[in-house]
Amino acid sequence: MVSPLNNRRVVLAARPVGAPDANGFRFEDGAIPPLAEGRILLRILYLSLDPYMRGRMSAARSYAQPVEIGALMEGGTVAIVVESRNPDFLPGDIVLSYSGWQSYAISDGTGVSKLDQAVAPISTALGVLGMPGFTAYAGLLTIGRPQPQETVVVAAACGPVGSAVGQIARIHGARAVGIVGGSEKLAFVRDELKFDVVVDRRSPDFADQLRQACPHGIDVYFENVGGMVWDAVFPLLNKFARIPVCGLVAEYNSVGPPPGPDRLPVAMREILTKSLTIRGFIQHEFADQQPEFYRKMSAWVADGRVHYREDVVDGLERAPGAFIGMLEGRNFGKLLVRVSEV
Amino acid sequence: MVSPLNNRRVVLAARPVGAPDANGFRFEDGAIPPLAEGRILLRILYLSLDPYMRGRMSAARSYAQPVEIGALMEGGTVAIVVESRNPDFLPGDIVLSYSGWQSYAISDGTGVSKLDQAVAPISTALGVLGMPGFTAYAGLLTIGRPQPQETVVVAAACGPVGSAVGQIARIHGARAVGIVGGSEKLAFVRDELKFDVVVDRRSPDFADQLRQACPHGIDVYFENVGGMVWDAVFPLLNKFARIPVCGLVAEYNSVGPPPGPDRLPVAMREILTKSLTIRGFIQHEFADQQPEFYRKMSAWVADGRVHYREDVVDGLERAPGAFIGMLEGRNFGKLLVRVSEV
Repeated sequence: MVSPLNNRRVVLAARPVGAPDANGFRFEDGAIPPLAEGRILLRILYLSLDPYMRGRMSAARSYAQPVEIGALMEGGTVAIVVESRNPDFLPGDIVLSYSGWQSYAISDGTGVSKLDQAVAPISTALGVLGMPGFTAYAGLLTIGRPQPQETVVVAAACGPVGSAVGQIARIHGARAVGIVGGSEKLAFVRDELKFDVVVDRRSPDFADQLRQACPHGIDVYFENVGGMVWDAVFPLLNKFARIPVCGLVAEYNSVGPPPGPDRLPVAMREILTKSLTIRGFIQHEFADQQPEFYRKMSAWVADGRVHYREDVVDGLERAPGAFIGMLEGRNFGKLLVRVSEV
Repeated sequence: MVSPLNNRRVVLAARPVGAPDANGFRFEDGAIPPLAEGRILLRILYLSLDPYMRGRMSAARSYAQPVEIGALMEGGTVAIVVESRNPDFLPGDIVLSYSGWQSYAISDGTGVSKLDQAVAPISTALGVLGMPGFTAYAGLLTIGRPQPQETVVVAAACGPVGSAVGQIARIHGARAVGIVGGSEKLAFVRDELKFDVVVDRRSPDFADQLRQACPHGIDVYFENVGGMVWDAVFPLLNKFARIPVCGLVAEYNSVGPPPGPDRLPVAMREILTKSLTIRGFIQHEFADQQPEFYRKMSAWVADGRVHYREDVVDGLERAPGAFIGMLEGRNFGKLLVRVSEV
């Protein structure tokens, strides 16, 4: 059986130097081949856009292989099964998959999991109940270990990781201090996410504001941005502070060695004299906590203790532009591309 | 009763800018006051000289208060009780105390502990069985957690901390790679301390030699020096490597912000992509492990599994010069001043 459907794909056209632009991506159309025994045909509903994808576009070794030039851009997706020759899936099933930037995908079912639509909207499988939420949960609770009354600081506080970090910290009795870029995001994190204090990193007196927001210092700094927020945070860290590091989006587009002064010796001296712990991680290290996370986070979302916000862009053709904007902080909440309607 | 004894003291004369020189220290002589009830008079036998003392000479906040200008230089000491009005001590007792750079001290017994001369030479209470040995033991085993066959790298490998780190690593089945400055130290660490490989950081091809010494990468880097050794070590770190940080002696004399490039972003990227753990510490955090350390380390020294080397300088008047030389790496083993003979 030959499917009459056209599959539109976004491939990596060129490795960006610095910030990616539209030339980094190319659209390709192609017929979908017949479905072999054991396979399923997925129509993508939502594509997740995440900062880690910038790393995949570069040739440098990272925690994962880079995407090859001309290859499909990778990414997490929510999809619907439209055709199945695999007994584990039925047409109409909604699944979480890692199908990348395309409108259709064929899979043998490996790494594809069915979603329970009764728990929460299906898009949350890419956000608050998915990889970003789990990054926040595992990094904060396993590495950050916030204690009641302690102060937890997180940047990109209205993004999918940062928003979950602050809200989980509060559930565990800690004070949540969020850092955002812009007054609209500030109001959202303060009023909707109920962080204890929110500071705008674009304020001229940002460092002073952060100090005032943390009168008892900082016990956990959840590092998901890098860049100059670090310089304001570091002097405020308390003895035995913990710094889970899950991302450095502010630096992903940087080119060449940054100018001086060299900030490493000062950082190392603080690490030494304050007995700090800095720990990089990627969420799949903590995969054994995934069921517990899903159970707890679903309940927190259901009972309103955890709020989330999605920034949904319609149409695969808008994925490159939305991705480029995200690296500049232009998204407002978890960034998703609605590739097709259910 | 007035003691006829003269007490010679070394006080901080001026806060050094950069490397300290002789002008940083001043000798003062004074009579020893009569011994009040409950007090003991100690004659200092050995004064320990340690890199952390450089930090105490500066006004900058560190993990301890700075020494005031005109105040006695602090330091660990082994002493003999020459007079006692305290029922817990008898004349002739050999004790560990924190009496500083002077020839005599009066104490009420707080923080003074009697040494068992049968275990090992009394000077070891300031080295392999004392603070430096315990720094190595606690930092390596609690933070570094070397597993059999893993590679442990340590700099200043013939110093009191580094030499213990490598030997304890080997006892736990790991490979020990030492970094030293100079061929004489290299031969000692290789032939006497039995490290698996030793590399001279003064070699023009030091980074290449270190890479060859670590064909399976580095799992634990015990950071006790800082400076440029880091740059050779960092690219060789394995995923999930651990970096206990107990000292940064190479940087203690640095003045002002170091020139670029800024090495922090590269370090943070490695921390993220390799899931590294960096943890600063000071040994007294782990005080509950002290009895276990003392029992095990005494046994290892007694059965020859742990060797140590002392660099003993005679006479308190030579303490400033010896201390200045230590910061330049001129000592060869644990640096001690023999203030008086038993």
